[in-house]
Amino acid sequence: MLTISNRGSQMPPSPIRKLVPYAEAAKKRGTIVYHLNIGQPDIATPEIILDAVRKSDFKVLEYSHSAGNESYRKKLVKYYDNVGINVNPEQIIITTGGSEAILFGFMACMDAGDEVIIPEPFYANYNGFAIEAGVQVIPITSAIETGFALPPMEDFEKAITPKTKAIVICNPNNPTGYLYSKDEMEILKQIILKHNLYLFADEAYREFCYEGTHTSAMHLTGVDENVVLMDTISKRYSACGGRIGALVTKNKSLLASVMKFAQARLSPPSFAQILGEAAVDLPADYFDTTKAEYKKRRDTIVTRLNAIPGVFCPNPGGAFYAMAKLPIDDADIFCQWLLESFSYNGKTVMLAPATGFYGTPGLGKQEVRLAYVLNTTAINSAMDCLEQALLAYPGRIM
Amino acid sequence: MLTISNRGSQMPPSPIRKLVPYAEAAKKRGTIVYHLNIGQPDIATPEIILDAVRKSDFKVLEYSHSAGNESYRKKLVKYYDNVGINVNPEQIIITTGGSEAILFGFMACMDAGDEVIIPEPFYANYNGFAIEAGVQVIPITSAIETGFALPPMEDFEKAITPKTKAIVICNPNNPTGYLYSKDEMEILKQIILKHNLYLFADEAYREFCYEGTHTSAMHLTGVDENVVLMDTISKRYSACGGRIGALVTKNKSLLASVMKFAQARLSPPSFAQILGEAAVDLPADYFDTTKAEYKKRRDTIVTRLNAIPGVFCPNPGGAFYAMAKLPIDDADIFCQWLLESFSYNGKTVMLAPATGFYGTPGLGKQEVRLAYVLNTTAINSAMDCLEQALLAYPGRIM
Repeated sequence: MLTISNRGSQMPPSPIRKLVPYAEAAKKRGTIVYHLNIGQPDIATPEIILDAVRKSDFKVLEYSHSAGNESYRKKLVKYYDNVGINVNPEQIIITTGGSEAILFGFMACMDAGDEVIIPEPFYANYNGFAIEAGVQVIPITSAIETGFALPPMEDFEKAITPKTKAIVICNPNNPTGYLYSKDEMEILKQIILKHNLYLFADEAYREFCYEGTHTSAMHLTGVDENVVLMDTISKRYSACGGRIGALVTKNKSLLASVMKFAQARLSPPSFAQILGEAAVDLPADYFDTTKAEYKKRRDTIVTRLNAIPGVFCPNPGGAFYAMAKLPIDDADIFCQWLLESFSYNGKTVMLAPATGFYGTPGLGKQEVRLAYVLNTTAINSAMDCLEQALLAYPGRIM
Repeated sequence: MLTISNRGSQMPPSPIRKLVPYAEAAKKRGTIVYHLNIGQPDIATPEIILDAVRKSDFKVLEYSHSAGNESYRKKLVKYYDNVGINVNPEQIIITTGGSEAILFGFMACMDAGDEVIIPEPFYANYNGFAIEAGVQVIPITSAIETGFALPPMEDFEKAITPKTKAIVICNPNNPTGYLYSKDEMEILKQIILKHNLYLFADEAYREFCYEGTHTSAMHLTGVDENVVLMDTISKRYSACGGRIGALVTKNKSLLASVMKFAQARLSPPSFAQILGEAAVDLPADYFDTTKAEYKKRRDTIVTRLNAIPGVFCPNPGGAFYAMAKLPIDDADIFCQWLLESFSYNGKTVMLAPATGFYGTPGLGKQEVRLAYVLNTTAINSAMDCLEQALLAYPGRIM
């Protein structure tokens, strides 16, 4: 018998996508399903950046530079300058989505058996990339009661071992929407300096902050060697399918190492680099409009959630996710039940059970993640469904 | 001191790209450089498939299915049927270039410490993907004297250990251009059946065969569980920058495992999937024209090479590469010298030293790879340069 690798067996199936067959069955029965389960925005990709691709007139769809087109990297310097990050084109390596930036960062900084600390709940695919790199994820728990604030320094200290090589944060956070404060970022700085760790900062949602301001890991001083920014245009410009991201760091040895991984896969996708380059020239108010729309949705969903008896949803400071604690026995069963056994006026709602975002088994059983990627009319209708569902659900607890 | 991972240190720099700074310096001095060093064709990407992207009219650049758009996979079934490969859409996973198909295949089938046998010289980036997967490449040598035919079965038998999990072939071959015969493919079949191994078949150049016919690994019977096809549209349609490939297998457990790797990185690039889908509908004579052009170039370069005293170049049966043995001391030094210290009528030529394509240290020191990706006028001019260079080169040996 030919066997799959242990790594292949250990790879987790997507916790977001595992409910898809139930959603498909519901739709076949004629039920309308509100998708609050996945971070695929409904916001239109700016026409002007799609047009940049449509109007491209090259003759040969060539490999780009392995680090991405120089013209694009030069443009990105301007983008980063606008958000207070001072880098040069040689400090930017364009990647195939933020996904590849994470994988390259893990692979270039860590070996099999090394450990990376990640506050949980966290973006579930960090698990997959850690398994690909042979790295152990050590979760430290943030709590819904504090709105998923950074766990106290002692929790990091307790988790650090001689094998610890890095800390990953996502800011603002997916799945919690939590926006780390400047003080929290300074605490992380102390920890990485004291213990000589890399800080991988996933800032995919940088522009979507509704309370306070965003402190980038690249704003921290004195940690140029430690900080690795993992970036993507996916959410910023509603361009998830482009698969364009970037790994940004001032650490020269790391850049040289990541370049070898980049060369092995030849180049990032060419079409979407054109789109990414055009996006830097979008009018200054582009993010204002998008952010205002997401804020309206956030206010709607958080207000509706907290008005349902037994539901608690901390107000997320950024991104487009909210985590809610529900009066239920088991979020996985509940989310499946919503699709399989429930409808209200011919409609139901698809949510992501939070269990897939925790590294510690057993946590998140009463929590769900809601992505507010639909307009407020749809969100209100979805909340009507959820309200009725919680009344009807056999596994309701108080 | 923050350190790079051992894996990051072990990653080989691109053997093709390491001469780039010397080429750039030569161009700055005003020297014309003929690039025969890299497999970037000058053939125009078919206008009609570029237009499919230019005319796309979606509003949101969404994630595609992690396995690629269903419409594209259905179309590919037709493409594969045309080349005698019978598969269904569920047996195809669209990848980000052939590169990702190789990485996913290695990761899903092998664990750290496992061994993969590859006839050398081989595509240098297999080394990089093997290091990423923690896998050991065991090279077995094919010789320029036989035109780089498959090494005898005994050589495989000698190399196989309990850790051997797979054999990789590239057919027709990069860098040698060798086209494996049906008999050779049947020998490989015997070996993988006897020793229960995967056969990874990289068939990027399937359409470009000038002598005899192509035997796909998927044409072999009774090895459905063993065969993993690694495919790409990069060379087929001169669409290298699209970054669209595919992993194709009938092994269900393997497909399920690869899907988890595919889900972790969310989706392959959307724009180039549109291009790939349109490519399946290109007129039947598309490959005839392209193939005729490459054959003319092959005939030109091989004739010119063998006419130079002391040079031997076996006639490659496919792809668009030729390997030549030169009367020189050291191909790495010679290729650098061509760019640094030589020009003929203001021109020189950039070649790939063969050492980077061998896994066994010391092999290939007198060999270079030439990619015939330029038109015959440029090739003739490049061969004029090479002929003169071999007369002038201080390290010439007979």
